[in-house]
Amino acid sequence: MKFLILNGPNLNLLGSREPDVYGCETMEACLAGLRQRYPQHTLTAKQSNVEGELINYLQQAAAEGCDGVVLNAGGYTHTSVALRDCIAAIQPLRVVEVHISNIYAREDFRRTSLISAVCCGTIGGFGLDVYRLAIEALA
Amino acid sequence: MKFLILNGPNLNLLGSREPDVYGCETMEACLAGLRQRYPQHTLTAKQSNVEGELINYLQQAAAEGCDGVVLNAGGYTHTSVALRDCIAAIQPLRVVEVHISNIYAREDFRRTSLISAVCCGTIGGFGLDVYRLAIEALA
Amino acid sequence: MKFLILNGPNLNLLGSREPDVYGCETMEACLAGLRQRYPQHTLTAKQSNVEGELINYLQQAAAEGCDGVVLNAGGYTHTSVALRDCIAAIQPLRVVEVHISNIYAREDFRRTSLISAVCCGTIGGFGLDVYRLAIEALA
Amino acid sequence: MKFLILNGPNLNLLGSREPDVYGCETMEACLAGLRQRYPQHTLTAKQSNVEGELINYLQQAAAEGCDGVVLNAGGYTHTSVALRDCIAAIQPLRVVEVHISNIYAREDFRRTSLISAVCCGTIGGFGLDVYRLAIEALA
Amino acid sequence: MKFLILNGPNLNLLGSREPDVYGCETMEACLAGLRQRYPQHTLTAKQSNVEGELINYLQQAAAEGCDGVVLNAGGYTHTSVALRDCIAAIQPLRVVEVHISNIYAREDFRRTSLISAVCCGTIGGFGLDVYRLAIEALA
Amino acid sequence: MKFLILNGPNLNLLGSREPDVYGCETMEACLAGLRQRYPQHTLTAKQSNVEGELINYLQQAAAEGCDGVVLNAGGYTHTSVALRDCIAAIQPLRVVEVHISNIYAREDFRRTSLISAVCCGTIGGFGLDVYRLAIEALA
Amino acid sequence: MKFLILNGPNLNLLGSREPDVYGCETMEACLAGLRQRYPQHTLTAKQSNVEGELINYLQQAAAEGCDGVVLNAGGYTHTSVALRDCIAAIQPLRVVEVHISNIYAREDFRRTSLISAVCCGTIGGFGLDVYRLAIEALA
Amino acid sequence: MKFLILNGPNLNLLGSREPDVYGCETMEACLAGLRQRYPQHTLTAKQSNVEGELINYLQQAAAEGCDGVVLNAGGYTHTSVALRDCIAAIQPLRVVEVHISNIYAREDFRRTSLISAVCCGTIGGFGLDVYRLAIEALA
Amino acid sequence: MKFLILNGPNLNLLGSREPDVYGCETMEACLAGLRQRYPQHTLTAKQSNVEGELINYLQQAAAEGCDGVVLNAGGYTHTSVALRDCIAAIQPLRVVEVHISNIYAREDFRRTSLISAVCCGTIGGFGLDVYRLAIEALA
Amino acid sequence: MKFLILNGPNLNLLGSREPDVYGCETMEACLAGLRQRYPQHTLTAKQSNVEGELINYLQQAAAEGCDGVVLNAGGYTHTSVALRDCIAAIQPLRVVEVHISNIYAREDFRRTSLISAVCCGTIGGFGLDVYRLAIEALA
Amino acid sequence: MKFLILNGPNLNLLGSREPDVYGCETMEACLAGLRQRYPQHTLTAKQSNVEGELINYLQQAAAEGCDGVVLNAGGYTHTSVALRDCIAAIQPLRVVEVHISNIYAREDFRRTSLISAVCCGTIGGFGLDVYRLAIEALA
Amino acid sequence: MKFLILNGPNLNLLGSREPDVYGCETMEACLAGLRQRYPQHTLTAKQSNVEGELINYLQQAAAEGCDGVVLNAGGYTHTSVALRDCIAAIQPLRVVEVHISNIYAREDFRRTSLISAVCCGTIGGFGLDVYRLAIEALA
Repeated sequence: MKFLILNGPNLNLLGSREPDVYGCETMEACLAGLRQRYPQHTLTAKQSNVEGELINYLQQAAAEGCDGVVLNAGGYTHTSVALRDCIAAIQPLRVVEVHISNIYAREDFRRTSLISAVCCGTIGGFGLDVYRLAIEALA
Repeated sequence: MKFLILNGPNLNLLGSREPDVYGCETMEACLAGLRQRYPQHTLTAKQSNVEGELINYLQQAAAEGCDGVVLNAGGYTHTSVALRDCIAAIQPLRVVEVHISNIYAREDFRRTSLISAVCCGTIGGFGLDVYRLAIEALA
Repeated sequence: MKFLILNGPNLNLLGSREPDVYGCETMEACLAGLRQRYPQHTLTAKQSNVEGELINYLQQAAAEGCDGVVLNAGGYTHTSVALRDCIAAIQPLRVVEVHISNIYAREDFRRTSLISAVCCGTIGGFGLDVYRLAIEALA
Repeated sequence: MKFLILNGPNLNLLGSREPDVYGCETMEACLAGLRQRYPQHTLTAKQSNVEGELINYLQQAAAEGCDGVVLNAGGYTHTSVALRDCIAAIQPLRVVEVHISNIYAREDFRRTSLISAVCCGTIGGFGLDVYRLAIEALA
Repeated sequence: MKFLILNGPNLNLLGSREPDVYGCETMEACLAGLRQRYPQHTLTAKQSNVEGELINYLQQAAAEGCDGVVLNAGGYTHTSVALRDCIAAIQPLRVVEVHISNIYAREDFRRTSLISAVCCGTIGGFGLDVYRLAIEALA
Repeated sequence: MKFLILNGPNLNLLGSREPDVYGCETMEACLAGLRQRYPQHTLTAKQSNVEGELINYLQQAAAEGCDGVVLNAGGYTHTSVALRDCIAAIQPLRVVEVHISNIYAREDFRRTSLISAVCCGTIGGFGLDVYRLAIEALA
Repeated sequence: MKFLILNGPNLNLLGSREPDVYGCETMEACLAGLRQRYPQHTLTAKQSNVEGELINYLQQAAAEGCDGVVLNAGGYTHTSVALRDCIAAIQPLRVVEVHISNIYAREDFRRTSLISAVCCGTIGGFGLDVYRLAIEALA
Repeated sequence: MKFLILNGPNLNLLGSREPDVYGCETMEACLAGLRQRYPQHTLTAKQSNVEGELINYLQQAAAEGCDGVVLNAGGYTHTSVALRDCIAAIQPLRVVEVHISNIYAREDFRRTSLISAVCCGTIGGFGLDVYRLAIEALA
Repeated sequence: MKFLILNGPNLNLLGSREPDVYGCETMEACLAGLRQRYPQHTLTAKQSNVEGELINYLQQAAAEGCDGVVLNAGGYTHTSVALRDCIAAIQPLRVVEVHISNIYAREDFRRTSLISAVCCGTIGGFGLDVYRLAIEALA
Repeated sequence: MKFLILNGPNLNLLGSREPDVYGCETMEACLAGLRQRYPQHTLTAKQSNVEGELINYLQQAAAEGCDGVVLNAGGYTHTSVALRDCIAAIQPLRVVEVHISNIYAREDFRRTSLISAVCCGTIGGFGLDVYRLAIEALA
Repeated sequence: MKFLILNGPNLNLLGSREPDVYGCETMEACLAGLRQRYPQHTLTAKQSNVEGELINYLQQAAAEGCDGVVLNAGGYTHTSVALRDCIAAIQPLRVVEVHISNIYAREDFRRTSLISAVCCGTIGGFGLDVYRLAIEALA
Repeated sequence: MKFLILNGPNLNLLGSREPDVYGCETMEACLAGLRQRYPQHTLTAKQSNVEGELINYLQQAAAEGCDGVVLNAGGYTHTSVALRDCIAAIQPLRVVEVHISNIYAREDFRRTSLISAVCCGTIGGFGLDVYRLAIEALA
């Protein structure tokens, strides 16, 4: 199966950014581990700081017959109606929402996710393990 | 007269996306119909999923002496202060806000438009006909 | 086709009332222009300051086989659940909500419309032109 | 000078209605007293339970050259955008808002007046004396 | 005993209006059934789409020595302070608030009743049976 | 028919508890009266102060083929999502929500019922008579 | 009779301060006019910018047998629970709340008065005339 | 490792309760599958409709050296401060919050979880698969 | 005099639970100290994690002629209308609300107490000393 | 030990002010009783109606080595950020917040205390006894 | 030029008060530095804990021809309508609002400034440097 | 030292856009003035209408050892969680938030800044001077 791992703003900084919140593993190391663990799946990874480019990637994935998306929308989780509309528009492509930290134990404005309602499921709070769990859930 | 028809995020999917909400006509077919109906006007059409590119297009239209803009800002309607500031900044260029579906009969967060107050008018809920009505209103 | 143009409270004062907000054309002049422009349609016009009489007119229109209603509910737009219930009750008769001024650029309490969700579409902000656009949309 | 004393819903019951809140003087007795005290003014009094009829009376007063209105809008004070629009529409005719009881010491929903902002002044809480004070203020 | 069955806006459409919400029995049939079932009581029925006329009917009932009112205020339930004031003003005449559908399972703005607090009781959600239950409660 | 009369917290104190709010009849006397009036029905009565036990009783009633439930959830009316879920889960068993006092004329936090939306109807404010009316409604 | 005219913060600037909002008459001129008009009453006037001193003046007035207070609490109107407690504490001394401008037509935070509920009445929006009307109401 | 699978109110009805929302697999079948898949772990399962009993089970698990808890708190998720305090009190025992359905796509009152902030992670929306994913996350 | 010391959910963990918030003295030690200090009073202590059992204990105390209750309702303080109703129902038995920590310096949802309004007083923030102070206040 | 008993606005009226709410003992009598009961402590008492003077007294107490403050901030409890900042600034001097009446059973705006979070504890609702309990808590 | 540096409540404690939030430089040292840096300007400094005295100082500055005010209103920033009115009343005298700490990174109630809208500018978060920057801005 | 001056959406229009709000100096002129005034610093200036590109520029600045950023985020100030996350992620690089106009004296939705809490300071309302003051603050 073909999965897209799509990361939103600032997730390219993983490993160096606020390590007490996000841990010190880099996204690259995490991906290498996932590819090793799931040799039967094709894992593509994309990242962008631009809200509209994330929408482009999602539309592309739908057009290219992707089997599922693991989406960490970062800060856009809480503010992007456009991203939500996109996830609804590309259905039946399944999208899993993931968060590295427990967003419910942080600032108030992080407690609302605009995209949860249109994702098939949501996983949060287990560090980089959430990517593995999301692939488990999709597979 | 020169008009810009500017479409925001996910509107490139029109025709395939959630047809029960948005109908099955494509934007291309709609534009062809408009050009045929209004041969006396120059209709340019642009689309982008990126909030800032919509701003670029609007600034450009103002700089190039466009006579009116038909703007379907999609999901950015409800979240973009930057788009609102742009519409205010390029006045006296007139911008008409359009929506294909009746946004007031949907989710709560779609009931607030940040751009209505700076547009010269708003038209919503008549399917792709809203583009034609907007040109009628501008002409 | 038979259309009802139904105006709510204070719209009988059009032309004299706050001309900087509502313009100085009277409703009569506007109607005359519409009848001239659309000789193929029968345009009936009613006005009342009384909420319940507007409901009576709407029920009557439905009973008499009217093909569409252009409704400017004035101040009742924001407060009348009874009007909303009426519009829902007389479906499939189509009702278009119109506003002469841009209600979203005015006081807070004007930003909520109780009737939008049950109208087939909404047009606002183009002065008395909204009546013409509504007939375009219905026809 | 010509003044209109306009009373809204249920104020025809004054004297019998909840006397611990509204006192036991009737509106008739109050008016008789006012006419005796101000022989130099013409005092007309109207009452209606219908929101739209109050609007009709106000428009009429404006059309007939009334010099000021003492308005006790009763329950419509808190809910009527249409009445507010009317008071704004008939300016420069001055309207004084009065309340017999202290509306701020009662239920929450009575603490908001939609019409205060468009009246020239407001007087409340002195029993039927508010009518006299309003005429003092207008004269 | 003498009871008034007072229906608010759009309830004259019962039987034809949105039958999936309100059922297809007409108000007339319902009243006939009630009169047959309670021959010992005098049942008067009134309906109006006008808020102020409902107030007039209530004041009249109080003046004529009615023993109880079954009130379905329709859309005015949620917006009319004037109706509430009237029910408070005509006490000790008992008024029972009824609703045909379960208003708590519908839109948000239907969940607040301005009149419940001044009625002696409230019955909702059993279709046209609520009229019978209200008479049971009053008798 | 078999009906369950299910009372929530503190309703075992009826008759002694705040008699100015709840009257002085005990639940036992009320039940005896109901059994005498409806000999054709089997009336079971249960009470618990524990939220989860009320859920147990409701599940049990559904499992044992009960024909309807009269539920006075007391203080849990306003706070229990679990009770609401239970009533939804045991459908098509019909549950009628009753309240002895008029909850809308009391504290603010009593004006919201979490269970109304999933009950088939609601009756409130007539003292212990609400139990009889609920059985009338169910029968 | 002895009346205290008590002015709160910034009202010593009357006449020079924002004349388009507050007019250009000074407080001194206003007082002189009042004393001339009401020779039968003793009018004392005090002003302070300090919230607690206003409380001191009110307590003093109560202790010295004052017959009524005309209070313009300025900005403290909207924020002072302590002032409210004082007015309640010195009852039955009657306090009339006055405002020179129409506070309901200005910023949102001016629409709430913490003291209205404990004053015997409130008068606002007639310029410096409010002081005269308040004395009329007290006398 | 020893894990407790703790289910809250109404989850004993899984398989029969609203199958379009919760699916038709029973909890027993789900548990059997998990025990087969993870023979190396000891899986204990408890269910209760009583909020306080869930707290008792959690305290017990902590006292008996359990290695992790999979908690589906059902309706108590949104209302129980006591459950939240318990999860905080038994730390460092890790608790994973799971939900069978996507709670963010349902009623408003289900969008707030009082326990998320004190759980180590949260998984929702994948049907009964959430139990497996939670064990994956804990192991 | 006979006093009941009633502790709610998780207070059985005192001494081990989050010692930086709640201190390390156990409830047993605290009780022993109180009994030694007040030999003239009979002090009974009960604890339960179940909301309804706390209600049972309170009803029992009232029935057995208890002279006062020291109630630490823990997490139920903020969510239990049923507990509030119980305290109101058993009056004139006096109940003192206590909290070990300063609940106003913690999370937002802890700042609202549903039971304060019906308790005779409230004491919070002095550690286990609050139990002693409550007995002082009751005696 | 040296304690300051600091009373805010209107508390100098104790004994005469609203005796049904605050009792009829004067502050002087209360202080005399406390000094007799606690001869080992030095009790200083200050009162002011001025918010800033209360801050001055608190700063002074901190500068002079006071061992604890019993603060009844009256109406400033609910509005004074400045007082809150002062209490935070003079730490580690311990301040106990007291209220004579149960502020949670009164108006809504009295339910929020800005100072609770920075006081070491709070005691309310036992009449003038709260001063004694506060000294018990501090000693 | 003549500038007034006006400090509100508790700012006299600078240097000793919560040094982790406010630093340890005293206001005196800061002023000495400013006077040395700007010998061409006359810098007057005042401080008061009393809201009304700050108003007195501002009115005085306006009357004495001051060229600009640097105002740190401390806790009154968030609560004083009277201070806001004063700043508006003394225009065109320019007032700059300063804050030593970043008020937006602290408690919720510190995020609202009542005075920002009437100041000519605002500077916050750079420690005592904000006073220097404000003088730069005014000069 | 190396500073980045980063401007968000529509700030490329400075000088022509709404000159009554933003003045008529262009950004280029402003930069030239700053470079002349601070020859000892390297000032780089970037602008973008795209939210994600602003994030790219900030990450780049951090990677290239920039000593401070002057950020005018324009409309993204009020809506971008992603920008806020970026500023937090690139710490200890200091970012100063600036606004040309006084955002607190404008529309409501401009009064909330999502980025203030993670910036080291904020300066607003002095026209293009805010850029100079920000460099003063950083240097």
